[in-house]
Amino acid sequence: MQIPIEISARHAHLSKSDLEILFGPGFELTKLHDLSQTGQFAAKEIVELVGPRGPLDGVRILGPVRAQTQVEVSETEARHLGLNPPVRDSGNLDGTPGVKIIGPKGEVILKQGVILALRHIHINPATAVEIGVKNYDRVKVDTSGTRDLLFENVLVRVDPSFKLAMHIDTDEANAAGIDADNHVGEIIVP
Amino acid sequence: MQIPIEISARHAHLSKSDLEILFGPGFELTKLHDLSQTGQFAAKEIVELVGPRGPLDGVRILGPVRAQTQVEVSETEARHLGLNPPVRDSGNLDGTPGVKIIGPKGEVILKQGVILALRHIHINPATAVEIGVKNYDRVKVDTSGTRDLLFENVLVRVDPSFKLAMHIDTDEANAAGIDADNHVGEIIVP
Repeated sequence: MQIPIEISARHAHLSKSDLEILFGPGFELTKLHDLSQTGQFAAKEIVELVGPRGPLDGVRILGPVRAQTQVEVSETEARHLGLNPPVRDSGNLDGTPGVKIIGPKGEVILKQGVILALRHIHINPATAVEIGVKNYDRVKVDTSGTRDLLFENVLVRVDPSFKLAMHIDTDEANAAGIDADNHVGEIIVP
Repeated sequence: MQIPIEISARHAHLSKSDLEILFGPGFELTKLHDLSQTGQFAAKEIVELVGPRGPLDGVRILGPVRAQTQVEVSETEARHLGLNPPVRDSGNLDGTPGVKIIGPKGEVILKQGVILALRHIHINPATAVEIGVKNYDRVKVDTSGTRDLLFENVLVRVDPSFKLAMHIDTDEANAAGIDADNHVGEIIVP
């Protein structure tokens, strides 16, 4: 089955309390544009990160707010910051490094929450049944082009709200030559 | 067959004339350390690149000098520079973008020569016969770990001087989770 491949650039999900520290009491995120997954959006707001080795600016906030703050960067960006985050699925933050987050109204010293996102696919229950996978399975996704590769160990996330899409980070997209002209993969169920 | 995977960070190969413009007449490169391939070395010398969008410093010169100047960056770095170089094998530079190179003694406006390196393996003739490949064939290389993937479309370069090694760039290494603890792949001949 073919699947659209979407590239996740560096971004942060914020808790309500961290949002208010960074942007002020009672602040609400402003939608820049919807993302492919229902209810998720890119906000106009951006923050700066400061790690032990250097800063990283232009980190977009994705909404809505979440229970805990989570920062997703590429390995390239993590090295620039001087951090060594593990590859994790979303929300699995125990033992991950922290980082300083700077907003227009304040700073948050995040104790943990920086990850490299585990490559994954979003799929709805009907399509999951159709191809024979369930939540938390692993599949492979084959790409094409000059930098043709096969992503193995791709996490499957199933939810009725999901639209079929694979999410990879910028390093993975660059390594696979994924861009506006080449952004469809083939799901391979082991 | 197992193969060591080596990561090529951004670097430049210089022609003798460009070397002399950047570092001065009669200048000779100083060896920092040998590379895995016989006769190749990382020089102590570095240059800065300036593209239409921004600069990129700390670009190491690899020696010895070559017939034509060639600059190899990752896609991440190319975007930073504001360039859109193609994926090419070494030396195949027709139609590639140029860049300004700044050295301690002068500047070169390179007309063409910036590439994303085509992932490739170095192999000697005896080993090539053993696994059934020849120069310019394509093979696959399987990696392991959390970011397990299969590199397809891997160029085979055969030469008596070559030691067995795969070369990938930093985006590819980050996408595959290749590092000091995880740097061996398995060659798969189609």
